[in-house]
Amino acid sequence: MLVVGELINASRKDIAAAIEAQNKEEIKKVASDQVQAGADFVDVNAGVFVGQEADYLQWLVETVQDAVDTPCCIDSPDPVAIEKALAVHKGTAMINSISLEKERYEALLPLVTGTDLKIVALCMSDEGMPETCDERVKIADKLINSLIQKNVSIGSIYVDPLVQPISTNSTFGLEFLNAIQKIMTSFPGVHTICGLSNISYGLPLRKHINQNFAVMAIAKGLDGLIINPLDKRMMANIIAAETMAGRDNYCMNYLKAYRNKKFEF
Amino acid sequence: MLVVGELINASRKDIAAAIEAQNKEEIKKVASDQVQAGADFVDVNAGVFVGQEADYLQWLVETVQDAVDTPCCIDSPDPVAIEKALAVHKGTAMINSISLEKERYEALLPLVTGTDLKIVALCMSDEGMPETCDERVKIADKLINSLIQKNVSIGSIYVDPLVQPISTNSTFGLEFLNAIQKIMTSFPGVHTICGLSNISYGLPLRKHINQNFAVMAIAKGLDGLIINPLDKRMMANIIAAETMAGRDNYCMNYLKAYRNKKFEF
Repeated sequence: MLVVGELINASRKDIAAAIEAQNKEEIKKVASDQVQAGADFVDVNAGVFVGQEADYLQWLVETVQDAVDTPCCIDSPDPVAIEKALAVHKGTAMINSISLEKERYEALLPLVTGTDLKIVALCMSDEGMPETCDERVKIADKLINSLIQKNVSIGSIYVDPLVQPISTNSTFGLEFLNAIQKIMTSFPGVHTICGLSNISYGLPLRKHINQNFAVMAIAKGLDGLIINPLDKRMMANIIAAETMAGRDNYCMNYLKAYRNKKFEF
Repeated sequence: MLVVGELINASRKDIAAAIEAQNKEEIKKVASDQVQAGADFVDVNAGVFVGQEADYLQWLVETVQDAVDTPCCIDSPDPVAIEKALAVHKGTAMINSISLEKERYEALLPLVTGTDLKIVALCMSDEGMPETCDERVKIADKLINSLIQKNVSIGSIYVDPLVQPISTNSTFGLEFLNAIQKIMTSFPGVHTICGLSNISYGLPLRKHINQNFAVMAIAKGLDGLIINPLDKRMMANIIAAETMAGRDNYCMNYLKAYRNKKFEF
């Protein structure tokens, strides 16, 4: 399971304040905490700062990588911001995200062509948000094929089938889960990834829903998550689910996590 | 989700003592508690009392149904014990379980022929415990077809693909989960059911594993569980998972459970 720590996002008040104040220590702490809790990538997002996004994103990458050796997930639809962030990034970054929306697609494709960047391929097109499993798979198919034609290896592609709220439509959870399974079995070698919080929009006890939805998605084959790794119940669920999904030989990861007292509910 | 409350099982010391002492109040309390917590069936098992199983099972059915209107899941491989229990049972009982083991199969088939009993069909044969998805589906296929030929409706059949411990083989969880999905999609109208505790055998924090495995199985289509309904985290997980599996129109069950303060972690 690839875990992307989602906390360094300017849509969160504390992070926005730290970015504006250029408070390196605060950002470094959030980065370190997430890596210590198990993040494989540290998401960096400065999307709320229109006009300054590129500069802030570059500063975030430098600051995060000053604290940890972990690569960043550069979270922006803007090719200029991504380019600026990549210029200072050490190691293999992840780009979140390319989509089938024409403008975004055409702007980002040259940036990833022939690279070994890890690329989140969001199942979104100019026709709007996908609702069914089939709509998601259709977009995934186009994105995967176009990226492969641009010499991106299939193992670098992380399809995000786009979680939608079940409060809006009772089938949205199931359609997403089925899309995970269909994508993982139809395109051998590809990865899937998603954020979770949309699933619980409008409902009480959102954490409880998100924690369980992660487990359901792992049962269907999901192998990447953009989450808050400081959510200990979430991490405990993921570790157990991975073991039950057949991804933990001799239950070694589970037992190791237990011994290291990672299970704290 | 059909919930079978598993607590009235003579393999538990307190229950064995209550049965031996013919302590009706104790059994009635455990029955009531489970029904109040959401059990649709109350499992009754007196298997440890060799020679007295039939009498004790009959007494358990009478005692349970004296306390609750909920039907029983008669948990025995012995046709004599089952017949005696059925003789006093009110409503439509569940029989746990028939299997493809020749002796058990031939003894129980006459008992269920042409009835509307709910029947747990355990994926076990004289060749031993199934390990792979395919082995499970093969046994399920034979059991389902033979029951249908005996005028049992497909909706009365609850296939139990048999959970095996992941500590023994890392793929046992996945093979089981895939069997759930294959059975639910290959035999429209059939149900699936299982106990969970075998999955976590030999590992620490068994409840945590069982609770998450239930959620994974629901993601794959499982619609019945033999569990301890007094495990509040388990019940909370099931309610959330059902909602995300598309079985909860307008999230009504989830919201009702929340309002009724069923979510107690």
